[in-house]
Amino acid sequence: MPAPSPTLAELAARFTLGLRAAGEGQLAFLANPRYRQELAGTGASAVVLAEADAADCPVPCLVAASPYAAFARIAALFETRPATTPGVHASAVVAGDADIHPGAHVGPFSSIGARCRIGAGAVIGPGCIIGDDCVVGPGCELLARVTLVTRVRLGARVRVHPGAVIGAEGFGLAMDAGQWLKVPQLGGVQVGDDCEIGANTCIDRGALDDTVLEEDVRLDNLVQVGHNVRIGAHTAMAGCVAVAGSARIGRYCLVGGGAGIAGHLSVCDRVTITAMSLVTASITEPGEYASAMAAQDARRFRRNAARFRQLDALARRMGTPPKD
Amino acid sequence: MPAPSPTLAELAARFTLGLRAAGEGQLAFLANPRYRQELAGTGASAVVLAEADAADCPVPCLVAASPYAAFARIAALFETRPATTPGVHASAVVAGDADIHPGAHVGPFSSIGARCRIGAGAVIGPGCIIGDDCVVGPGCELLARVTLVTRVRLGARVRVHPGAVIGAEGFGLAMDAGQWLKVPQLGGVQVGDDCEIGANTCIDRGALDDTVLEEDVRLDNLVQVGHNVRIGAHTAMAGCVAVAGSARIGRYCLVGGGAGIAGHLSVCDRVTITAMSLVTASITEPGEYASAMAAQDARRFRRNAARFRQLDALARRMGTPPKD
Amino acid sequence: MPAPSPTLAELAARFTLGLRAAGEGQLAFLANPRYRQELAGTGASAVVLAEADAADCPVPCLVAASPYAAFARIAALFETRPATTPGVHASAVVAGDADIHPGAHVGPFSSIGARCRIGAGAVIGPGCIIGDDCVVGPGCELLARVTLVTRVRLGARVRVHPGAVIGAEGFGLAMDAGQWLKVPQLGGVQVGDDCEIGANTCIDRGALDDTVLEEDVRLDNLVQVGHNVRIGAHTAMAGCVAVAGSARIGRYCLVGGGAGIAGHLSVCDRVTITAMSLVTASITEPGEYASAMAAQDARRFRRNAARFRQLDALARRMGTPPKD
Repeated sequence: MPAPSPTLAELAARFTLGLRAAGEGQLAFLANPRYRQELAGTGASAVVLAEADAADCPVPCLVAASPYAAFARIAALFETRPATTPGVHASAVVAGDADIHPGAHVGPFSSIGARCRIGAGAVIGPGCIIGDDCVVGPGCELLARVTLVTRVRLGARVRVHPGAVIGAEGFGLAMDAGQWLKVPQLGGVQVGDDCEIGANTCIDRGALDDTVLEEDVRLDNLVQVGHNVRIGAHTAMAGCVAVAGSARIGRYCLVGGGAGIAGHLSVCDRVTITAMSLVTASITEPGEYASAMAAQDARRFRRNAARFRQLDALARRMGTPPKD
Repeated sequence: MPAPSPTLAELAARFTLGLRAAGEGQLAFLANPRYRQELAGTGASAVVLAEADAADCPVPCLVAASPYAAFARIAALFETRPATTPGVHASAVVAGDADIHPGAHVGPFSSIGARCRIGAGAVIGPGCIIGDDCVVGPGCELLARVTLVTRVRLGARVRVHPGAVIGAEGFGLAMDAGQWLKVPQLGGVQVGDDCEIGANTCIDRGALDDTVLEEDVRLDNLVQVGHNVRIGAHTAMAGCVAVAGSARIGRYCLVGGGAGIAGHLSVCDRVTITAMSLVTASITEPGEYASAMAAQDARRFRRNAARFRQLDALARRMGTPPKD
Repeated sequence: MPAPSPTLAELAARFTLGLRAAGEGQLAFLANPRYRQELAGTGASAVVLAEADAADCPVPCLVAASPYAAFARIAALFETRPATTPGVHASAVVAGDADIHPGAHVGPFSSIGARCRIGAGAVIGPGCIIGDDCVVGPGCELLARVTLVTRVRLGARVRVHPGAVIGAEGFGLAMDAGQWLKVPQLGGVQVGDDCEIGANTCIDRGALDDTVLEEDVRLDNLVQVGHNVRIGAHTAMAGCVAVAGSARIGRYCLVGGGAGIAGHLSVCDRVTITAMSLVTASITEPGEYASAMAAQDARRFRRNAARFRQLDALARRMGTPPKD
């Protein structure tokens, strides 16, 4: 199926963006200020950009309050999604008491456990394993090879990427007479409407209560969410973030790639954590927090790092009192 | 099946914990001192706690030497496990010379390679791929979508969570005339009794000898263990830890989430590494080791980090000799 | 099948290494200088080593320009690979218009989408899910449980380990009226000849253009590569590295385990990033870069880290101007 080719005028009409000029050929967009200097030399026939950049645009432009959001809407017109038809693939293994909506799709090599409910329009891609007592809300999409271990409840329109594991046992261990004793994880996982869960991301189920993602939470790939964590609505976490058990993260937070959040603490709403930083104490004020240094020439870094190891002694020599 | 409902008296009898009083309704537990101040206002009918907290408990309590271990044993009474019946699912693909104990369970869409042995009571969940020459000991549980690539030997009662990959080729590469040359990985992986391996965790097989986990090793989700690593008994690693090739980790070590351990070094017994710290040299004394700083306000952090980049120069100005 | 047993003389002849002496029994190799002191006490019958170490070798040795590369070639003689026969397993689900070379192998529980092409000698292991419009070049090996989501083009001889997810949607999100708006990812992923992609590694597809790995790129396990990243030929990344969207990495770079590279920047050829370091700005000079400190005794570390938080104030007290 060839992609549809709306004209710029059609796009503009559809989006009611202020159309400065119309043209043919390729459409570019300028959403990241880093690329502003590339505007003058663009070969695009038209550019979607912010008001402030319009004057510098040598070709026709579409002015948008948020060029990136405008791009998202335009790109959606060109997106082709694999066709999925309602029904259960012949190879799928479905428990007798699972309730699968006739409008849902269950792909090949998927298995659905006891007492599960799969909602209208939900798509369970190939190779998904859904354990007992799970709910997949209407319009959810589990792309492929997703595992919902047990007691996982997905709201509406949740999108889960391949390899994600939701509802595995948390890392609950008690040391007992020199051996680890497994702490059973009796809770589940609740995922709110419109959440997205990246490839190979893991969200453990709760020990007694549930692990909770409120609505519109967005997790990138390879993220780890421990048991009994709560993540507030609209919070986004980039790849390889790790959140330890029982942490409570607020709404509209942004967590940079590879950052870590310790367990049993709270982060308030609208907090940004920069990439690879480590949060070890509760954060009660919105704002940006950091602890990861940027790479420098390794020889110079090593000299500085060696001094860091003397830093307290150095400061004492200066007569500075040891306080934080 | 409804969960069983033992009374507190029954629990106490079973655990021979010192029963101070009995009651009805919900049972709470106090294992983490962070939550001590919540004790006074608890709505629970009874609390499992340590001797030291008993006096402050406004409701009946169960005193345990280790409240968390007591909780683990109590919670196990309420755990429901999916019923698995012995036998091989009709859809599974099993090599002719694989030896599967009649008391083992092999789920749908699983494949078992040549010369494998699956022990009594072992559960191979749906979607598991077990390559050639693997051994799964008695009572092991591979929950779902686990891959044992080749030459993986699991002891008894090993628990492997979904998405884990054990026995993949290590990252063995030799640069040769401007191209990478693959170093074949001829070893396997030995996993001791009672180990647990988290979701999407990877353990590479050895180059010549085996990669080894001694008994009762506990790895959380998304952990990476390189080829020829040896991890001592009872060591636990939290999510997203990475251990590079040929590192030797002792017994009863605790490694915090996101920490890294460089290759070709030794860490002795009873070492704790804090979250996101990096071990680059052998550790020969038990104790706690750290290198990851805690996040602070980003503007202040950036000013401090800029100074870090001048730190050696700063120290020289003070006349401090450059030594570590 | 027993492994073949070439004699040392045969090995030497085959490799045209300078043979100093021949022997029987086990062959060792000395490639890492860390192990040099073990040479004197070796129980091996022969050792592969570099010219400089030959004089100290108490047993016969094979001198190689690169002992590790020599080992790789020798080990390959002993490697047994699972036999795969051309053809499509009866359980596999293949789209009617997929073009599968008669010399390719497609294993059980694999699914291949519309318009895919699978080349000569390619091996698609068990449980692989290949979405629409993918190309798997000749001689590729997808070991097991690999997902190619859509529009992924693998060159020749690409090796992909279990659990890897290539071509998932990038983390493209635009904030729009308080909700996240999904940015469609219309591009694909191009992977050059002879690349290797580790277990549970994720490579997202591009937003408009493709995400690109040039030839002979080697990614270890649990690596995250964001959308529209470009990685130059012969670059190797160790486990748990994360590369954010639109970063451009040069050729012959080495990235240590757990390192992070921010988005929208460039790293030139022949750059080494040490383990767990964070690159936040473009690098234009070859060399080694670092930002991750090594663990020390935790009490001492905490005292130093507390001083770090005063570092700018400390430097000001010394009258140092605040510049980087």
